[in-house]
Amino acid sequence: MADKLLIGIDLGGTTTKMAFLEKSGKIIDKWRIKTDTSDNGNHIAPNIAKSINSEMTKTNHTKDEFLGMGMGTPGTIDNKAGTVYGAYNLNWGDKHQVKSVIEKGVGLPLIMDNDANVAALGEFRRGAGSKDQDIVFVTLGTGVGGGIITEGHLLHGCNGDAGEIGHICVKPGGYMCTCGKRGCLEQYASATGVVHIAHDMAEKFTTGKSRLKQLEDKHQKVTSKIVFYLADNGDILANQVVDRVCFYLGLALSDVANAFNPSNIIIGGGVSNAGNTLLQPTTRYFQENAFPPVRDSTKVQLAQLGNDAGAIGAGSLALKFDKSSKNKSSWDK
Amino acid sequence: MADKLLIGIDLGGTTTKMAFLEKSGKIIDKWRIKTDTSDNGNHIAPNIAKSINSEMTKTNHTKDEFLGMGMGTPGTIDNKAGTVYGAYNLNWGDKHQVKSVIEKGVGLPLIMDNDANVAALGEFRRGAGSKDQDIVFVTLGTGVGGGIITEGHLLHGCNGDAGEIGHICVKPGGYMCTCGKRGCLEQYASATGVVHIAHDMAEKFTTGKSRLKQLEDKHQKVTSKIVFYLADNGDILANQVVDRVCFYLGLALSDVANAFNPSNIIIGGGVSNAGNTLLQPTTRYFQENAFPPVRDSTKVQLAQLGNDAGAIGAGSLALKFDKSSKNKSSWDK
Repeated sequence: MADKLLIGIDLGGTTTKMAFLEKSGKIIDKWRIKTDTSDNGNHIAPNIAKSINSEMTKTNHTKDEFLGMGMGTPGTIDNKAGTVYGAYNLNWGDKHQVKSVIEKGVGLPLIMDNDANVAALGEFRRGAGSKDQDIVFVTLGTGVGGGIITEGHLLHGCNGDAGEIGHICVKPGGYMCTCGKRGCLEQYASATGVVHIAHDMAEKFTTGKSRLKQLEDKHQKVTSKIVFYLADNGDILANQVVDRVCFYLGLALSDVANAFNPSNIIIGGGVSNAGNTLLQPTTRYFQENAFPPVRDSTKVQLAQLGNDAGAIGAGSLALKFDKSSKNKSSWDK
Repeated sequence: MADKLLIGIDLGGTTTKMAFLEKSGKIIDKWRIKTDTSDNGNHIAPNIAKSINSEMTKTNHTKDEFLGMGMGTPGTIDNKAGTVYGAYNLNWGDKHQVKSVIEKGVGLPLIMDNDANVAALGEFRRGAGSKDQDIVFVTLGTGVGGGIITEGHLLHGCNGDAGEIGHICVKPGGYMCTCGKRGCLEQYASATGVVHIAHDMAEKFTTGKSRLKQLEDKHQKVTSKIVFYLADNGDILANQVVDRVCFYLGLALSDVANAFNPSNIIIGGGVSNAGNTLLQPTTRYFQENAFPPVRDSTKVQLAQLGNDAGAIGAGSLALKFDKSSKNKSSWDK
């Protein structure tokens, strides 16, 4: 009998990405559905199960070909109880029973983890960290998330909150964060953080000509993408904003690296589409602040899997159901 | 036959502390010798072997009662080659063959690790972290060292430099550090850092009466111990200095905790003898800067083993030689 397959689910506030994968992490089929957050998010779990079942029918697969399912989700996860809460973008503020709904709907076992953690696992298994055992993954989107893998193991910490890189304080007394404290990296290096910095720096910008300054003065819409685009095209203010963003990001990454000494720091998420415009100054500030032996052994690089990272990493969680495997951990390579 | 015993060696620049231990980490005999760093530190390894042999004779032990030896040492360690280098306080700047000298001298196998790492292991096994699986240990002495244990495993990182908490940047562009970069925690929270801050703050101190200010003005010797003593006794400047030290320490610890979510952060080393005068404000600044779920699940506390932590932790390294053990890792509890 051929090796069994995995199902990876990457649950997001707007879309849910799903994939059938080989045990190696290779995607053999992928698709996405809109995440329906109406009615307190009560449709989300049934919709996922329904969609997996119909995709199996469509692709001539049966559930006995699969080992199990893994899912990355926002919020706080309790795998034992099968619940998720505090996922406000899903309207799952209160505790929602998720695991048993999807398990019963599909007829396969499910294991869940934090969305940033599964993206880290994806890059670790098949992406920018595929040759490494110690990686730090940071995702720059609407917020800033992170996942840390040391000696081949995804860290959870005593309460499941390891990897919260977005809430490292990079500026004491700085911007107020949604978490209630000030100066979190998330407020400086997320897409919204970039816009916030652009707005503040535009107010003080008086010398020179800048398209970004013009946009701000006219109260036109400024996005993180526009800031990086303008920086790429030589806009002086946009370059100052990008430099500020990269300074804080490089500083936070050096903090984490001084503690973990990873071989790779991998930057993913929408903001990382800025490519070298983001990577180059971030690397410079990282190197300026990292302990020299760490600086010399830790690379900063861009994620490679894009939107597939989550589903690939989520699928790898299901390796845990592989009783025949000699692997001690679900994420051993 | 009774369970075999362990030998723990805590090699420091001034003294070398050694112990015979049970496998549980319980000390059954401990002693210390002066570390003779003369002749490029060439006497250090032979002296350790000699001292262990004579202690065995003195206490009626034979080497076949022991499983092996573990040693904590400053510097950069290569266990495979058996060498240490970059331990300048031992005059081991260049590569020194250490392992084979001690192994041949005693007739037992030796495993080495970083001095802060073995102190972390000691507190993890028998001290303030003995009930936990995820701890961060920071030692505030002449410098600042650290060791991190997650899910029961001591972290080394890709290059053996994990746990370098002392080189987390707490003040961009701040005090110059011996490592070549600026603003490292070590320059603010080590004994020398405390003195440096006291000196700088005394210069700017103009209002109020302060014994610390008087000492500084008269160029009298100020130590970290004096600063904490004066703070304890209500000296206004000394309290400001302690507050500054604790701010930077609390900030760095929150960075590490946001990444690891340890159950315990344990503060050891000479400066930690200041007790609550150090702990209370550090905890406050930690809590101010930690991600709320991390803040609520991570305790900051003082080390419990004092000078014994190193030898206990070093001894636990030798559990690795226990072929009969079901423990997968040398530091499983």
